[in-house]
Amino acid sequence: MSEPFKALERAPRDSRHPLTEILDAVGFNESGLIPAIAQQHDSGEVLMMAWMNREALEETLHTGRVCYWSRSRGKLWRKGESSGQQQHLKSAALDCDGDTLLLQVEQTGPACHTGRRSCFYVALENDEARITAEPLIDPDTLYGSGKG
Amino acid sequence: MSEPFKALERAPRDSRHPLTEILDAVGFNESGLIPAIAQQHDSGEVLMMAWMNREALEETLHTGRVCYWSRSRGKLWRKGESSGQQQHLKSAALDCDGDTLLLQVEQTGPACHTGRRSCFYVALENDEARITAEPLIDPDTLYGSGKG
Repeated sequence: MSEPFKALERAPRDSRHPLTEILDAVGFNESGLIPAIAQQHDSGEVLMMAWMNREALEETLHTGRVCYWSRSRGKLWRKGESSGQQQHLKSAALDCDGDTLLLQVEQTGPACHTGRRSCFYVALENDEARITAEPLIDPDTLYGSGKG
Repeated sequence: MSEPFKALERAPRDSRHPLTEILDAVGFNESGLIPAIAQQHDSGEVLMMAWMNREALEETLHTGRVCYWSRSRGKLWRKGESSGQQQHLKSAALDCDGDTLLLQVEQTGPACHTGRRSCFYVALENDEARITAEPLIDPDTLYGSGKG
């Protein structure tokens, strides 16, 4: 864990620290990415997990519209740019060791490219996996092609 | 995305699929790990994100007690084995492309090694980072040494 996050462990509630120092200490992985969990701010539903590089994180914090890094496409992915299903940021938090993000968002419609509200629909139960949700929208109507 | 997860995209709600086939298709990364998000099952609070290898995932599903893979220690990490703050599994789900897990858990006390309930206490706000939570328990009382 980097020194700035170690120092924050005993920082009191509501203490404030320069954002730039914190961003400089974020534990991006060897590909320059950090996992970002998106949670619907009012219902608490976990919608998806995707990845951000520093540019995506800074854009998200500045614009309030969630921007990820698409590993499959190798470029910034402004959530909803092809599907219309945008994520608006309510708040963002790093974890104790600065290598995971939790985003509180307002998600328009489905977060998942399959048209489901959440990506987490494959439940692991005893000796079976069970599909736990139906699409809200036919995915063929969400995309010309591609994902987002 | 692997073929089994592609096939599940259009599977109907409550359809069931052999667990072994699904586990064989999980998108473990180049280190053999998958990120696992732990959410308190009743409050919806996101507590932490850690990593599992296949052995940790299978142990968790079999025993109902959450077991991660500690990247820093290079071994299985049965959450709470040193701190006493265990996680009991209520349910587990994979996401649409089979490379992230969401665990619904019953967390005893704090999930975070700092003694806080959740690891996500470093809020990113405008030009500052703000500490949003106090420890429930002094971390010095949680551990002799180490983390867990």
